[in-house]
Amino acid sequence: MNINELLRGYDTGNLAIGTLASHSALQIMHGAKKERFTTILVALRDRAWFYRDFDHLIDLIIEVNSWRDICKPEIAEELRGYNTILVPHGSFVEYVGLECGESIKVPLFGTRSLLRVEADQKLKMLLLMKAGIPTPRVYELGDDIRGPVIVKLPGAKGGKGYFIASSNSEIEAKLRKYIEDGLLRSPREAIIQEYIVGVTAYFHYFYSPVLNRLELLGADIRYESDIDGLRRLPVGILEELGIDPTFTVVGNLPLVLRESLLPRIIEYGRRFVDASRGMVSPGVIGPFCLESVIDRELNVKVFEFSGRIVAGTNLYIDGSPYSYLYWDQPVSMGRRIAIEVRLALEKGLLEKIVT
Amino acid sequence: MNINELLRGYDTGNLAIGTLASHSALQIMHGAKKERFTTILVALRDRAWFYRDFDHLIDLIIEVNSWRDICKPEIAEELRGYNTILVPHGSFVEYVGLECGESIKVPLFGTRSLLRVEADQKLKMLLLMKAGIPTPRVYELGDDIRGPVIVKLPGAKGGKGYFIASSNSEIEAKLRKYIEDGLLRSPREAIIQEYIVGVTAYFHYFYSPVLNRLELLGADIRYESDIDGLRRLPVGILEELGIDPTFTVVGNLPLVLRESLLPRIIEYGRRFVDASRGMVSPGVIGPFCLESVIDRELNVKVFEFSGRIVAGTNLYIDGSPYSYLYWDQPVSMGRRIAIEVRLALEKGLLEKIVT
Amino acid sequence: MNINELLRGYDTGNLAIGTLASHSALQIMHGAKKERFTTILVALRDRAWFYRDFDHLIDLIIEVNSWRDICKPEIAEELRGYNTILVPHGSFVEYVGLECGESIKVPLFGTRSLLRVEADQKLKMLLLMKAGIPTPRVYELGDDIRGPVIVKLPGAKGGKGYFIASSNSEIEAKLRKYIEDGLLRSPREAIIQEYIVGVTAYFHYFYSPVLNRLELLGADIRYESDIDGLRRLPVGILEELGIDPTFTVVGNLPLVLRESLLPRIIEYGRRFVDASRGMVSPGVIGPFCLESVIDRELNVKVFEFSGRIVAGTNLYIDGSPYSYLYWDQPVSMGRRIAIEVRLALEKGLLEKIVT
Repeated sequence: MNINELLRGYDTGNLAIGTLASHSALQIMHGAKKERFTTILVALRDRAWFYRDFDHLIDLIIEVNSWRDICKPEIAEELRGYNTILVPHGSFVEYVGLECGESIKVPLFGTRSLLRVEADQKLKMLLLMKAGIPTPRVYELGDDIRGPVIVKLPGAKGGKGYFIASSNSEIEAKLRKYIEDGLLRSPREAIIQEYIVGVTAYFHYFYSPVLNRLELLGADIRYESDIDGLRRLPVGILEELGIDPTFTVVGNLPLVLRESLLPRIIEYGRRFVDASRGMVSPGVIGPFCLESVIDRELNVKVFEFSGRIVAGTNLYIDGSPYSYLYWDQPVSMGRRIAIEVRLALEKGLLEKIVT
Repeated sequence: MNINELLRGYDTGNLAIGTLASHSALQIMHGAKKERFTTILVALRDRAWFYRDFDHLIDLIIEVNSWRDICKPEIAEELRGYNTILVPHGSFVEYVGLECGESIKVPLFGTRSLLRVEADQKLKMLLLMKAGIPTPRVYELGDDIRGPVIVKLPGAKGGKGYFIASSNSEIEAKLRKYIEDGLLRSPREAIIQEYIVGVTAYFHYFYSPVLNRLELLGADIRYESDIDGLRRLPVGILEELGIDPTFTVVGNLPLVLRESLLPRIIEYGRRFVDASRGMVSPGVIGPFCLESVIDRELNVKVFEFSGRIVAGTNLYIDGSPYSYLYWDQPVSMGRRIAIEVRLALEKGLLEKIVT
Repeated sequence: MNINELLRGYDTGNLAIGTLASHSALQIMHGAKKERFTTILVALRDRAWFYRDFDHLIDLIIEVNSWRDICKPEIAEELRGYNTILVPHGSFVEYVGLECGESIKVPLFGTRSLLRVEADQKLKMLLLMKAGIPTPRVYELGDDIRGPVIVKLPGAKGGKGYFIASSNSEIEAKLRKYIEDGLLRSPREAIIQEYIVGVTAYFHYFYSPVLNRLELLGADIRYESDIDGLRRLPVGILEELGIDPTFTVVGNLPLVLRESLLPRIIEYGRRFVDASRGMVSPGVIGPFCLESVIDRELNVKVFEFSGRIVAGTNLYIDGSPYSYLYWDQPVSMGRRIAIEVRLALEKGLLEKIVT
């Protein structure tokens, strides 16, 4: 698909920023409105009422019956009619589907070809390794497993279905159950990673092709059910219950990092930007997130990434502590996207930030 | 008592906003001052010094020897003399006492008749159930208890005296001890609730009768001693100590929620507003809080509510991430109350927001 | 050393604020810039690139090969040439060394003689006890130890090397290992404190000699590896691993406290200011932190302090909830320092805030 051709049909003096009504949509709308763009939301019919309370932020709500409707030619045409740049987020990646995401005839903010990598855990780990970013050891089923591992099902499932184990037999038993439940097709699809003992930390980056600058706009910790609740139960009751904890993301908690860690975190972000250029053209654009465990020696190991805006940025709708260092005003990730579009417009570089 | 009659004696061009010097008083004063109201604090004599450091926020401090002194006719008269609207908060509910709270001759922001419901755990659960909001199962002593339960003493005690148990005999033994210690009159007064495995989340709502709008202004997690500290101890030492954890609220931590949960959270808030109309006239006004556990399937179960401003809103004195979506300026719950008073004044609807 | 003499050589209309490029340097630079001071960073050569991304906040970066180079006469001379007031922080305390810190010929914001106390855990506990601030019981090796204790190595190590134990033999075994590893010279240097069961809370104070006012500008919780991660592991796996948790500080989490605790927290801060006057002349100036555990009865016990800005203040680069109560604008601790310098300048009181 020729995006530049689509852009040529656009009235760039009247751009709209659009997204799906989920994940970080309110933040994206708020940020786009701050930068004086028209804002468009594609919403599931039964959830649209919720977004109407924010009609001062949202100029138009297009109602659909299912997320995949966004790929119907008439919806894409309507979006193009409003000169829309579509911002993909986690729900886009998860619910719209790869085929549609890759082919939708609307300019996407960011790197369309990254969607295919996002959909494939093994490609994701490959990109991290190519970048020379430290990652946890990856096992195959049957490998000699030493110490605890975390096992993940393919796809962005918000942490659902992750589990911790410490032997092949334990892993196999659980995967068999997932297959029976229809959550997994083959045990080979599961990712088995060394479980790093340490604390999790999620870094929110923005790579600006217009400024050729990588910004660290925030960090968060996920708030996960039931793992973050279970640890409040007395040990005796925990043992009695014998529950296998889950990691369903319910929300996010704000975090700042030791300043002495920041140069390394920026360094890993730059390596990611560089490596992405070798794997998907033209390389990552705009928001991405490296998802790490930091151990007792302050080693940062990245076990996962997101190649688009993450929900943890919803903490910083009025700016993160770090965003004030770069911009000295309240710049959320949603607003940062809108700023990039505005800067690109001003410099005639729109084709550098959409694909 | 005829509140409208009290209001008729007021110089509404010179209203004051007042509260007790505890809980969320600084936030309420700060918010009222932002909206250019006169601000009045009723303070315990031995704590007044602390509030004097904030005299740019507080126009008048009335010193009392005990919280209940606020109910003396001369204090109420003084407050009326300044045209005061009194904002009740958690310390008001807990320390002033129901009889005084119901009869005090000063207009209260919010719903006076809700105080009686607030004072009675069983009425509170009834209101939630009437609203059709999912709640944990409630047991009576002697019921066939399966799985862990949480047992709570009556009254707003900031989490003190809660405990987790998993059998009738365990519950009875502990309640007997509370009765011996004079903390409880009868075992029947205790609330026994199914312990939902998941994570806690507290939602800060504001219902505006003037705008006829329900706003979600923030969310928090409580920081509780000793439960949030105990989990840092090694399992071996925990077992050695054999401590029964307590849930004394020490502070609050900020939280944002998955955006896909927000429509349901707003829906539950609306149901609460509607059901409150059937139970206490004219229904809830202004701030309230639904206190929930979110499980691994993202079910939201509400185990408790507060029919007034909660202390978790102190996190957002400069606005919560959500408040920027509604107001695009730093609006704390305290300031939101003051905005509602100002809007009501402008529209001649004062009697819709005080009781 | 005669600081007033150094100050007499300064062009006070052109002051610079300087610090070492670590810990809370970005915050300090941001705050100084907000108050329109020249800003100077002394950076390790291999980390300077990171700080160059913030050149709108930093007027000059002086590169050094090691932290101690800051004590070379030519660096101090260069700093004086720019009329620099140097702000010490945790990395200054830890990496520059006491001798250099005490003798460096550049005016320091704060109390130079406090550096010696900061470097000696036993003097620190003595100051707290002289202040009449409740502290955990301190044991000597061989004492009759009842209940869990926390054992700390001397020096500000960011929580590295702390451990929990419950008997003399356990403590001795671990200290022997630290000595073997060269982390400790003698077991006598270790601090053995009663482990208070409760939750930790760190209070950020600013004492203003110019306004003669103590402000509580924020609070935080430390995010520590691996202790805050380990508790997410299932009990069975934890026991299998048998890991001794560490407390390496990775970052910080925001916190607000029950308002009813604030008067006591301010009271303890005032006692600290008073007691510091008796121990180090002229007493504490500017930022300090009391580091506490709050138990189930809401007792606040202070187990440690920092006599300078702490990294937890990095949470509040755009202001903490409390800072809005005092200043009604976004005042970080870094900016508060700069405001104090400006106020002192205006009133001709510079010698009251530097030593």
